Amino acid sequence: MTLPSQAQKDRASAWFAELRDKICAAFEALEDELSGKNAERFAHVAPGRFERKAWKREAQEGEGGGGVMSVLRGRVFEKVGVNVSTVWGEFAPDFAKQIPGAEDDPRFWAGGISLVAHLRSPLVPAVHMNTRHVVTSKAWFGGGSDLNPMFPVAADTEAFHAAFRAACDKHDPDYYPRFKAWCDEYFFIKHRGEARGVGGIFYDYVDSGDWEADLAFTRDVGLAFLKIYPELVRRQMAEPWTEEQRRHQLMRRGRYAEFNLLYDRGTKFGLMTGGNVEAILMSMPPEAAWP
Amino acid sequence: MTLPSQAQKDRASAWFAELRDKICAAFEALEDELSGKNAERFAHVAPGRFERKAWKREAQEGEGGGGVMSVLRGRVFEKVGVNVSTVWGEFAPDFAKQIPGAEDDPRFWAGGISLVAHLRSPLVPAVHMNTRHVVTSKAWFGGGSDLNPMFPVAADTEAFHAAFRAACDKHDPDYYPRFKAWCDEYFFIKHRGEARGVGGIFYDYVDSGDWEADLAFTRDVGLAFLKIYPELVRRQMAEPWTEEQRRHQLMRRGRYAEFNLLYDRGTKFGLMTGGNVEAILMSMPPEAAWP
Repeated sequence: MTLPSQAQKDRASAWFAELRDKICAAFEALEDELSGKNAERFAHVAPGRFERKAWKREAQEGEGGGGVMSVLRGRVFEKVGVNVSTVWGEFAPDFAKQIPGAEDDPRFWAGGISLVAHLRSPLVPAVHMNTRHVVTSKAWFGGGSDLNPMFPVAADTEAFHAAFRAACDKHDPDYYPRFKAWCDEYFFIKHRGEARGVGGIFYDYVDSGDWEADLAFTRDVGLAFLKIYPELVRRQMAEPWTEEQRRHQLMRRGRYAEFNLLYDRGTKFGLMTGGNVEAILMSMPPEAAWP
Repeated sequence: MTLPSQAQKDRASAWFAELRDKICAAFEALEDELSGKNAERFAHVAPGRFERKAWKREAQEGEGGGGVMSVLRGRVFEKVGVNVSTVWGEFAPDFAKQIPGAEDDPRFWAGGISLVAHLRSPLVPAVHMNTRHVVTSKAWFGGGSDLNPMFPVAADTEAFHAAFRAACDKHDPDYYPRFKAWCDEYFFIKHRGEARGVGGIFYDYVDSGDWEADLAFTRDVGLAFLKIYPELVRRQMAEPWTEEQRRHQLMRRGRYAEFNLLYDRGTKFGLMTGGNVEAILMSMPPEAAWP
């Protein structure tokens, strides 16, 4: 296969930043929209705005890159982080063995966007979304999104899946069933014997041989998220909730923390290899409980 | 070496249960003793009492055992768990390779006590204590205790260390310096580049060749804990605290959770090998924050 050119890698990075901008704008609009009882409840909190913070990778010669963290703490979103990053260099020898195409040549380039949203309301699902492009002596796209309602609502779960199914079906009829199953398998909390949420899609190593088509797929995954998730937030965000529902939310967030620290590949890899701790752990819940 | 007899193993288990009883009594006494502003603050909470819950290990033939969890949720202790367990059977092949004396014969016996206390007051240190006896084709004692103040007080740190130093020095002048250093190394949160707390002692594979002496040492470690920790609680438990101090406590508890899920050998081993999830994760903080 032909590896992507620098111009292609730049286009992937540019897309991740563009998607970040669109998502941040959509989330800030939700912050502004909140009205009714919950707006009164959080009258002391200003409608949230993303704060951006750039970081540079500490790197040796031939390595580099960095990223931008965007964090919003508001009245709909208790804490939401959107990270974009573009990094390049060489994988550590032990790690290189585990990465396709890096066995003999440890050089890599990776760009991506990663988002985790923890909501104030226990009635609005938390969510994770991530897409990335990785280049070693091979090149592929990966990513996905999964929904984490504290009180699952069938219609919301269906709408979330339908959005990603449509994005997948546009590109390959095998994608949705395969990536849905992968998501269910990946986001399973083994020691609890339970799913982290109600699923979505998870994919990795997507390389159809047509780079343009693969970037278009990853764009469509991002756009599907941008369309469906704010819609799901809007459905429930004005509903008042009880202390008991909040306690249940904090317990479910404990499970979320367990998954991220015990199983999540990105979290573990980042922490074990000296990544930007603040950016990696932006996914952790603002509050959690193990009652 | 001669392996310990069943009678000796029973004596170790009996000691762990006896220590559990002494500690539970001491902690319940602290719950009763609370007076002043903090007693008023938690007037709606009854002085805490431990609730016990036995569990049996799901086991095949030749395996067995179980344990008893004791949990107290009170007005001094927000959540404290004391587990005792005695289990036996065969290690899984992959795991057996990592355990001294189990390389060629995977059979094991293990008994122990494990305690984690999370306090209501951010001014009172959280604490962990654990001692255990493990028998494969070798036999040894392990354990330790480390103090986790949210706002370290030099005199408390010194008193905590002095108590364990005395227990160590009674048995071997090398123990304290060696086990203190081991504790500092073990309870280090690598990705944060910071210590989890202010240390204590951590030891493993203690086998002097004199089983009675080694059990006596592990008893003295338990008794040192029983003497010093309630004393440290008593020093600060009546002090009022601020919301800001509480927020700092919740953030430090987030770090504690990170350590337990990312690095703690016991937690990871237990979860990955199908141990009793409720008992293993009793160490998790009742509330934590990643602000």
